[in-house]
Amino acid sequence: MKAYRLASREEHPENTIVKIGEQLTVGGRELLVIAGPCAVESREHYLEAASLVKGCGAHVLRGGAFKPRTSPYSFTGLAREGLEILAEARLQTGLPVVTEVMDTRDLELVYEYADILQVGSRNMQNYTLLHEVGKTKKPVLLKRGFAATIMEWLLAAEHIMAAGNSQVILCERGIRTFETYTRNTIDLGAVVAVKELSHLPVIVDPSHGTGRVSMVSPIARAAIAAGADGIMVEVHQNPAEALSDGFQSLTPAAFAQMIGELQRLAEVVGRVLNTPSVIPKEKPDNSVYLC
Amino acid sequence: MKAYRLASREEHPENTIVKIGEQLTVGGRELLVIAGPCAVESREHYLEAASLVKGCGAHVLRGGAFKPRTSPYSFTGLAREGLEILAEARLQTGLPVVTEVMDTRDLELVYEYADILQVGSRNMQNYTLLHEVGKTKKPVLLKRGFAATIMEWLLAAEHIMAAGNSQVILCERGIRTFETYTRNTIDLGAVVAVKELSHLPVIVDPSHGTGRVSMVSPIARAAIAAGADGIMVEVHQNPAEALSDGFQSLTPAAFAQMIGELQRLAEVVGRVLNTPSVIPKEKPDNSVYLC
Amino acid sequence: MKAYRLASREEHPENTIVKIGEQLTVGGRELLVIAGPCAVESREHYLEAASLVKGCGAHVLRGGAFKPRTSPYSFTGLAREGLEILAEARLQTGLPVVTEVMDTRDLELVYEYADILQVGSRNMQNYTLLHEVGKTKKPVLLKRGFAATIMEWLLAAEHIMAAGNSQVILCERGIRTFETYTRNTIDLGAVVAVKELSHLPVIVDPSHGTGRVSMVSPIARAAIAAGADGIMVEVHQNPAEALSDGFQSLTPAAFAQMIGELQRLAEVVGRVLNTPSVIPKEKPDNSVYLC
Amino acid sequence: MKAYRLASREEHPENTIVKIGEQLTVGGRELLVIAGPCAVESREHYLEAASLVKGCGAHVLRGGAFKPRTSPYSFTGLAREGLEILAEARLQTGLPVVTEVMDTRDLELVYEYADILQVGSRNMQNYTLLHEVGKTKKPVLLKRGFAATIMEWLLAAEHIMAAGNSQVILCERGIRTFETYTRNTIDLGAVVAVKELSHLPVIVDPSHGTGRVSMVSPIARAAIAAGADGIMVEVHQNPAEALSDGFQSLTPAAFAQMIGELQRLAEVVGRVLNTPSVIPKEKPDNSVYLC
Repeated sequence: MKAYRLASREEHPENTIVKIGEQLTVGGRELLVIAGPCAVESREHYLEAASLVKGCGAHVLRGGAFKPRTSPYSFTGLAREGLEILAEARLQTGLPVVTEVMDTRDLELVYEYADILQVGSRNMQNYTLLHEVGKTKKPVLLKRGFAATIMEWLLAAEHIMAAGNSQVILCERGIRTFETYTRNTIDLGAVVAVKELSHLPVIVDPSHGTGRVSMVSPIARAAIAAGADGIMVEVHQNPAEALSDGFQSLTPAAFAQMIGELQRLAEVVGRVLNTPSVIPKEKPDNSVYLC
Repeated sequence: MKAYRLASREEHPENTIVKIGEQLTVGGRELLVIAGPCAVESREHYLEAASLVKGCGAHVLRGGAFKPRTSPYSFTGLAREGLEILAEARLQTGLPVVTEVMDTRDLELVYEYADILQVGSRNMQNYTLLHEVGKTKKPVLLKRGFAATIMEWLLAAEHIMAAGNSQVILCERGIRTFETYTRNTIDLGAVVAVKELSHLPVIVDPSHGTGRVSMVSPIARAAIAAGADGIMVEVHQNPAEALSDGFQSLTPAAFAQMIGELQRLAEVVGRVLNTPSVIPKEKPDNSVYLC
Repeated sequence: MKAYRLASREEHPENTIVKIGEQLTVGGRELLVIAGPCAVESREHYLEAASLVKGCGAHVLRGGAFKPRTSPYSFTGLAREGLEILAEARLQTGLPVVTEVMDTRDLELVYEYADILQVGSRNMQNYTLLHEVGKTKKPVLLKRGFAATIMEWLLAAEHIMAAGNSQVILCERGIRTFETYTRNTIDLGAVVAVKELSHLPVIVDPSHGTGRVSMVSPIARAAIAAGADGIMVEVHQNPAEALSDGFQSLTPAAFAQMIGELQRLAEVVGRVLNTPSVIPKEKPDNSVYLC
Repeated sequence: MKAYRLASREEHPENTIVKIGEQLTVGGRELLVIAGPCAVESREHYLEAASLVKGCGAHVLRGGAFKPRTSPYSFTGLAREGLEILAEARLQTGLPVVTEVMDTRDLELVYEYADILQVGSRNMQNYTLLHEVGKTKKPVLLKRGFAATIMEWLLAAEHIMAAGNSQVILCERGIRTFETYTRNTIDLGAVVAVKELSHLPVIVDPSHGTGRVSMVSPIARAAIAAGADGIMVEVHQNPAEALSDGFQSLTPAAFAQMIGELQRLAEVVGRVLNTPSVIPKEKPDNSVYLC
């Protein structure tokens, strides 16, 4: 018996297409774009951000209500209040939301608000958490551990699937190497490998994968060219004032430009990037304002 | 403000001496030896193992009741039954026990049985777990994440201390590198660094640090020579039949020999390794049997 | 003074366009494709390979005459005989050739035959070799050391440039990490970084970068999408019988298909991949035979 | 056939004892201490340093005449003049000298002056250099490449031995990992592994292995406890003014203290550290002056 079975393409040759909310999917021909600020910082700020990223073409909103932080003295998120703001943003934009759950005790609460449950990089081998999200019915975004091998990542997915939930979306977000210029080393070879080894959808997070705003768009393009099923990026109205990760957050304008580039790229690799929510081109001023 | 304060030697120049059970300490002149099988496999087996390692000179018993496993199909421990066996072994030998807590929901249960709460390598950045063990009053054995920097390790200790518990014992257990001959690369430079940067006691786990039984004793000696405050090793009556980690488990005889070597070494580096529990030398047959 | 000056984009904002032979360049709008077997194995074999890769659209031929090998008992190349075969292939195809120089004593000989002098990954910090190729007038293909930081790589280029030769082509070929599924971890973030930090052209070697033939084309696409100026790939008529690196060598047919994909991709990222040597489309049978 | 044969303990069960100069050996019971400044900076300075380190108990002098430097603008050594100073120091102290050879073209020159030919970490896979030192009759100190696996290191030794020279001394000097607090991660597991896999002597360089002067002595002790056959350390009269590596150089006083610690440690691990050159204890003032 192989170490991973349920996640293996050998056992399940066709791509798994994960359904998100009512209208979206990931893993098929259409690419998925998840965007938003790193953390939910305040109601006003997040609702504005949500509106902006929707206007630029995002399909799913991201935003942390529970933030894992290396230092105990850093901002750790707004918790339940953050979740409520996410819910309001969803109502306002009509977009589903993804947010991280860090602790099995919070799962019920997060489950109530999130459309996709995110398991963060530091928790990729938190097996009790994997087991619990595996018992739910919502899609799980499983970020690769920053020092996890491809096999360990697939086995983490197997933990979720073995508990009953096959709606797993993998997310490559860079690994830890000797290189210090970039925050992490984005491993696009892992994306190609995982598409071969598994039937699960894989997206890429170029924001954490590089840690440098100027590198986000080129790596997003590279991810799609390598076969990724989508991307997740940090976007912030005013990166210089972000409570976390401002140095790697795109402005809405840069995000909108990236979306356009990815749309053209998608076609030549046999994919499509639909952004029905974008304000039609005949209203350029509004478009500029929104993005 | 520095990123870590409570764990910093600058703020607290004297060594922290952590009290374990009624009679033991770690962080002072006396070295600490923790030993036992990787997992609690069965009552009979564990009680025999406990008796053997006590006879060889161990101060603290180790044994996992909750085991984090890369594959969802591996043995994951006996849970509550395992904890009860640990309690029986403690009663029988008089030695305190250390065992891993993997989930905040299990903490109350584990707390009831363990003398030292172990936070495993995969959970070093499980901040909610750190916070919860930080609210207890028992010593915490904090294993270094297999890809955690020295700073991140000290910050994980800071999370525990910031929640109120200053009884933290650090444990170096090897880091992940490109080398494949050894299971991990044991980082004794980190031991020296942490003794300089922090006042907390540091022990070394050469079993996980090398993954090869023939390397355990030399690395245990090196750890003590580098300034570690103790070691934690896997010992199994019959390594070939262990349910986990047999390839890196010492036999009781090899363990006893290592203890003798460490005792001689301790003296030349200004430390002492007391093993009051060892059967006196005038009963050699028994000693041989026990070890 | 910064550590690197001559290689820095700050000091030299415009892209350096390196001229190769009479008609080719790299670093401008046109993408460069280097292809061929890992090693020159025999006259007959190499001439056939050269003809095939030309037919598929390669611009430059690759092939090792001096091969660095981890084991002293492996095939180490045909040396002078290999160089003579390369010269014959150049004459026959009209394509320039790149081949590795491993030792300062061989430089004069290799210089006579090669159009581009390759400095291999293991020699990226062989400073006397860098100095000597820096005193020549031919372009130098400088592969990134498999454990070199981006800064060390640029400083290696600086060594060549400080000796007088500014015709340096950088080549990312994967770095060594903990991951074992792929031969190396291709670092496309480094490609983006180097394009920002330096004015030198950068190409990518997805063959060594992945070590798996099925991953070569997706990573080649990703490299171009990330902004690389070209690619270098291993192509072999019969990969299963290659004396080295067969497991990562494309067949001519797969290579031809990849070229087509890259041509379409080039357009959407503002580049062009010209392959004037390809047999015109109106002779499809011949084209199929050649590729 | 295994990849390495000549270097393998399976093929050659007994330890190889390498003879150095007339009176010294490494690989037997006696430990070897190599010491001196990183580079030969000037005649006056080096002769004083040589006298000091001899007075403290060193067996072999180290000092670079050819220095590999990451930046082309750093001090690269005095070349032939440096070698002549080394020869004078040898004459004055009676101690053999080890110095690095970086280029096959320099080998004849270096061979004339050195008692041990050092192959540096960056050149561990410079196979033509390995081949050439393999054709000589002098001992070769083979530093581990900073990203070389244990197997690659042994295969580099095999390259030298296959060329005819079996007098190879291995030197662990730290590997490159994600950790940034230390300059490298010293890998004492590799020392243990190499003693098992090979019959060749192994020494440790804690200066490069840690990059921090306060860590040199503890890691030197750990190396000997792990089974290393000796150490190589950087010692400088005035570390703050060293042209290279001052931050990791011991003062003579710290070096002398370390020697004393290692002597006591050697005994408990079945080794001996003889320092016949040390001024007898009955002249304490002089001893203090010299060290």
